[in-house]
Amino acid sequence: MKVVYEVGVIGCGYWGPNLIRNFMQMKKTNVAKIADLDPKRLEHIKELYPSISPTNDYRGIIEDPNIDIIAIATPVKTHFKFAAEALAAGKHVFVEKPIAASTAEAKELIELAGKHRVKLMVGHTFLYTGAVRKMKEIIDSGELGEIYYINSQRLNLGLFQQDINVIWDLAPHDLSIILYLLGKSPVAVSAAGTAHINPRVEDVATVTLYFEKDIIAFVQSSWLDPDKIRRMTVVGSKKMMVYDDLQPSEKIRIYNKFVEKPTYYDTFAEFPYAYKYGDIVIPMLAGGEPIRLELEHLVESIEKDKELLTDGQNGLQVVRLLEAANESLENEGRKVPLDN
Amino acid sequence: MKVVYEVGVIGCGYWGPNLIRNFMQMKKTNVAKIADLDPKRLEHIKELYPSISPTNDYRGIIEDPNIDIIAIATPVKTHFKFAAEALAAGKHVFVEKPIAASTAEAKELIELAGKHRVKLMVGHTFLYTGAVRKMKEIIDSGELGEIYYINSQRLNLGLFQQDINVIWDLAPHDLSIILYLLGKSPVAVSAAGTAHINPRVEDVATVTLYFEKDIIAFVQSSWLDPDKIRRMTVVGSKKMMVYDDLQPSEKIRIYNKFVEKPTYYDTFAEFPYAYKYGDIVIPMLAGGEPIRLELEHLVESIEKDKELLTDGQNGLQVVRLLEAANESLENEGRKVPLDN
Amino acid sequence: MKVVYEVGVIGCGYWGPNLIRNFMQMKKTNVAKIADLDPKRLEHIKELYPSISPTNDYRGIIEDPNIDIIAIATPVKTHFKFAAEALAAGKHVFVEKPIAASTAEAKELIELAGKHRVKLMVGHTFLYTGAVRKMKEIIDSGELGEIYYINSQRLNLGLFQQDINVIWDLAPHDLSIILYLLGKSPVAVSAAGTAHINPRVEDVATVTLYFEKDIIAFVQSSWLDPDKIRRMTVVGSKKMMVYDDLQPSEKIRIYNKFVEKPTYYDTFAEFPYAYKYGDIVIPMLAGGEPIRLELEHLVESIEKDKELLTDGQNGLQVVRLLEAANESLENEGRKVPLDN
Amino acid sequence: MKVVYEVGVIGCGYWGPNLIRNFMQMKKTNVAKIADLDPKRLEHIKELYPSISPTNDYRGIIEDPNIDIIAIATPVKTHFKFAAEALAAGKHVFVEKPIAASTAEAKELIELAGKHRVKLMVGHTFLYTGAVRKMKEIIDSGELGEIYYINSQRLNLGLFQQDINVIWDLAPHDLSIILYLLGKSPVAVSAAGTAHINPRVEDVATVTLYFEKDIIAFVQSSWLDPDKIRRMTVVGSKKMMVYDDLQPSEKIRIYNKFVEKPTYYDTFAEFPYAYKYGDIVIPMLAGGEPIRLELEHLVESIEKDKELLTDGQNGLQVVRLLEAANESLENEGRKVPLDN
Repeated sequence: MKVVYEVGVIGCGYWGPNLIRNFMQMKKTNVAKIADLDPKRLEHIKELYPSISPTNDYRGIIEDPNIDIIAIATPVKTHFKFAAEALAAGKHVFVEKPIAASTAEAKELIELAGKHRVKLMVGHTFLYTGAVRKMKEIIDSGELGEIYYINSQRLNLGLFQQDINVIWDLAPHDLSIILYLLGKSPVAVSAAGTAHINPRVEDVATVTLYFEKDIIAFVQSSWLDPDKIRRMTVVGSKKMMVYDDLQPSEKIRIYNKFVEKPTYYDTFAEFPYAYKYGDIVIPMLAGGEPIRLELEHLVESIEKDKELLTDGQNGLQVVRLLEAANESLENEGRKVPLDN
Repeated sequence: MKVVYEVGVIGCGYWGPNLIRNFMQMKKTNVAKIADLDPKRLEHIKELYPSISPTNDYRGIIEDPNIDIIAIATPVKTHFKFAAEALAAGKHVFVEKPIAASTAEAKELIELAGKHRVKLMVGHTFLYTGAVRKMKEIIDSGELGEIYYINSQRLNLGLFQQDINVIWDLAPHDLSIILYLLGKSPVAVSAAGTAHINPRVEDVATVTLYFEKDIIAFVQSSWLDPDKIRRMTVVGSKKMMVYDDLQPSEKIRIYNKFVEKPTYYDTFAEFPYAYKYGDIVIPMLAGGEPIRLELEHLVESIEKDKELLTDGQNGLQVVRLLEAANESLENEGRKVPLDN
Repeated sequence: MKVVYEVGVIGCGYWGPNLIRNFMQMKKTNVAKIADLDPKRLEHIKELYPSISPTNDYRGIIEDPNIDIIAIATPVKTHFKFAAEALAAGKHVFVEKPIAASTAEAKELIELAGKHRVKLMVGHTFLYTGAVRKMKEIIDSGELGEIYYINSQRLNLGLFQQDINVIWDLAPHDLSIILYLLGKSPVAVSAAGTAHINPRVEDVATVTLYFEKDIIAFVQSSWLDPDKIRRMTVVGSKKMMVYDDLQPSEKIRIYNKFVEKPTYYDTFAEFPYAYKYGDIVIPMLAGGEPIRLELEHLVESIEKDKELLTDGQNGLQVVRLLEAANESLENEGRKVPLDN
Repeated sequence: MKVVYEVGVIGCGYWGPNLIRNFMQMKKTNVAKIADLDPKRLEHIKELYPSISPTNDYRGIIEDPNIDIIAIATPVKTHFKFAAEALAAGKHVFVEKPIAASTAEAKELIELAGKHRVKLMVGHTFLYTGAVRKMKEIIDSGELGEIYYINSQRLNLGLFQQDINVIWDLAPHDLSIILYLLGKSPVAVSAAGTAHINPRVEDVATVTLYFEKDIIAFVQSSWLDPDKIRRMTVVGSKKMMVYDDLQPSEKIRIYNKFVEKPTYYDTFAEFPYAYKYGDIVIPMLAGGEPIRLELEHLVESIEKDKELLTDGQNGLQVVRLLEAANESLENEGRKVPLDN
């Protein structure tokens, strides 16, 4: 077990600096090298952290024998290339979401990580938030009863991506949360959406996930909405829960409400349903910066050779759903069955 | 031109009393007779309005030569029967939404109204609200630019219907508003949804409307959500607009925000988009109870033989979308093309 | 015990119609007569309730031997005259808040009610709401601990009164709620405010109530605010509670938050305070129209000769605070001590 | 004109690190030295900025001839001592609000700054925010008409101060904003408040400012409220404005609402008031971190020898109001007249 893990970060654009800051603040990690094609980004980071060595050639990181962990925060289409080379060089790898641009790529990364006995982690950061952890705890306790339905919206104006549509950009968050909360994969996926600004890239879309037992989840993604909305509703047979990520502290609300199925079904009966209305509880949530918790989890996983919560398989699951959503978009919105 | 139109109301359940109250308050109308199968409902109305004659046989209304207008507020599957008989008897007819249980029925009602030269109105009440009128005015003025996308949510807990799914129950409001705002019909419809409480009746659903020029509209309907949500977003190329019907007075917000299309498309260009952020305006809205304005519009239309805003054709358009949504639900969520 | 109590209502302006509607809907009461100086108001009520006899001379009500209860909803300065004559005639009397224009008047009304052995009720309607009842229940249970502080705001644009300032118009609601919740009277009152629209009538004001043990309450009243605000915060040593009357259903929030007093006070100690943060609970509230519950309470009190929750003494307490507030306004905002 | 101003910061507790970060990020300033009595705080800053020299003796900063600017972020009672010595040593001085613990101290600091021809700035940071700047611009344009009334609330749970009451801790923000917006000083001040947690330190209070022409302002301060509230309402004769600092972007709302004074006053007239209701506008605000803008203003003022917006006089004005508020608290809440 090393005292300090040396980290190399490839990609210093939008998200990279957050990774760098956290790796620098953690006692067990140190960012030794960073790579980016834009010299201005390198210079900016260098000013903040004079001890870091910048380079415009990522190979300087991959080939450095002192580097233990490589974190990748580049455009999606390049994830595979950087991650594959890093894994092949025996480095532990952290990749931003989605883990790769196709299931084929994701599978190959998993294989490489296994072959070289290193960790492969995907940045499904929301799974490290107090809010999502609390939701998982509540669902697993049975408090909500049987889950019927999840509705998730992630809407705002921009930032437009060039290489991926809005589903690939925003929905990985919702999909990774839903998979985590339900603990199972959908049996089919459909999607609807259109492109308005860039004729080849959908900018508003709704993805529908069909699970066994009539569980359904809707995921709306948009780069074209005036309000920022980050809202997920989980409806169970006993209680209902709403997660509003934009609330500074009151992110989760548990509603003691339900509709009871009639014990028998009679087409002539009037109002055989029982409605329950009760108190609402807003639970206190654990704090901590999610990226920090995520990266500490990575270090612990390396140190103790423990399984990662958001490993390559988890990354693959999400990519499979994204791929199926695109397939549905190209096929009249038809359901695409998934072989679990 | 009569001084006072005599009205008969069939159906005194949830919505009927609102029609009765408005017809009674208007100077040009008087409710002479009401019909319902439930004697308690009749008794309740009789207490409020002692001058009204109750009956448990609707034929007493249809055959009454003094009745000028018949209003129908019964379950959807019975709309056709009551409306057809009333039209055939030469009465002007007001039917709650949706106008009928199928396009075939709706078409027959339109034909009957034409043949007997009477008015046929459908209760798309939202088209008579200050909020929807203001939205229409803003869109028609060109202030929003080209419309890209509409997103509408109508969610709450219950009330469950037995004979129709949640799309037929709630979406007629959204669909009639969207058709009115855009002034055109979609070219295809798809739908996704499932049933949890009553195995044969979808209780959560998303309907997608595809219009020409890549305009898309999402309509979410749910009987299974803990919060009541009535929210529609209209996104244009110049401005964006949000309509929140639950706000007591600030129902419409106009956002001076947009993303500008890059003048040419270059896959290598970085950030060729221009984002604009500006003031938000919450316009003052005209007041007045929508049902009242709706029924006054009916009376004016009868008196002056003017076209109705929400006539049989308008009712048919909505039913056609509902029918297509059901067809999509039965066909794996596939797009159902509409022949306009 | 009478089967039906005959009611006369004096004043059919803003509030009177609500009283009339409720007395008409209740099985044990019937509005026989109404009085108002404005013939249009009388005509309006007559149209709604043809069985009621209107009069422009209130004496027709007071002298009618068939009338059991007289409800007074007139400007404050006339409350005493009407109520005193009605009590003297042996009628049970319901007076809108504040019960009278001075403590002297209020005391005389109490005396008259006692002498004639009839009920005297003041319309402190909020004490009959589910929200205020729930707050009282929570405070009495000890859940909040020792009460430290109440902050209440009742702000909106207009309606301006001519004969009383904004404190006399709006604060009776807050004052009656605070007296009810705390179960005790303040030892001193101060007030600050100014007049902008009408030079002789304060239109914005803050009243401060000083209770024993350093409990303090602030009551802000305004006819000059753009937003309607109806908000009361109750801070205790163990928990805190917020009551927002404009929320349609989530009116009460209980915060599991407090600051613990340091066990000893040491000027050199750093942060000797303990802060607690926990869940928030939004309790389900009992429904029912408060005026209805209020008037049913009056009838029950008459029938069973039970004490009224909002009797003349309760009305007097509020008037005493209003009078002290005015006295403070005229004396540089100085604390006015109250002799309990 | 120096290329880079060397800065010394005394006090590295709650607010100091924000000053240090901004001085470090600005091109024209560099933090050379910091002082604090707590070695942990010094160590923490040293880790973030290895180039800074820490000391536990502030004299090392004051006596250093290379230091140009001294920033003071220590408890209020020590402001005078540090600022006076720094000014006497010919340094430009930035002091956190309130500038000193008494008007006598504030006046002496002003005198010292004048004598030594250096700048003395107080950290009334809100005057450098886009929201307050926009409010000032709107008021100065005459859009609101004549100002009638300002209502300000700054409420939350903790952080409790030991050496000053809640008015001295929180109200300087509101007072400096109000003075800036109105461009004049009040003619009298009163205050009401009590202490619950620490028997000698008021933890909830309302301060009332009386201006000429019946303008009034209420400032509520509390360390004992469950919700965080930062809200100011400005009511004018033509329009009204609300500033909610907790809104992430929609901080200012302008309401096109007013009540018109009746042209003549007639006690018998009914409703001689005219109410106007119109659109609401939420203006786009300028961005930028206020501390950064504040410190850049200081540097520009030094470079070009320009007047400071928040100079010693401005700091003195606020302290005078705080002192008067305390005097009122000790005198039964009586109005304390101010000699302008």
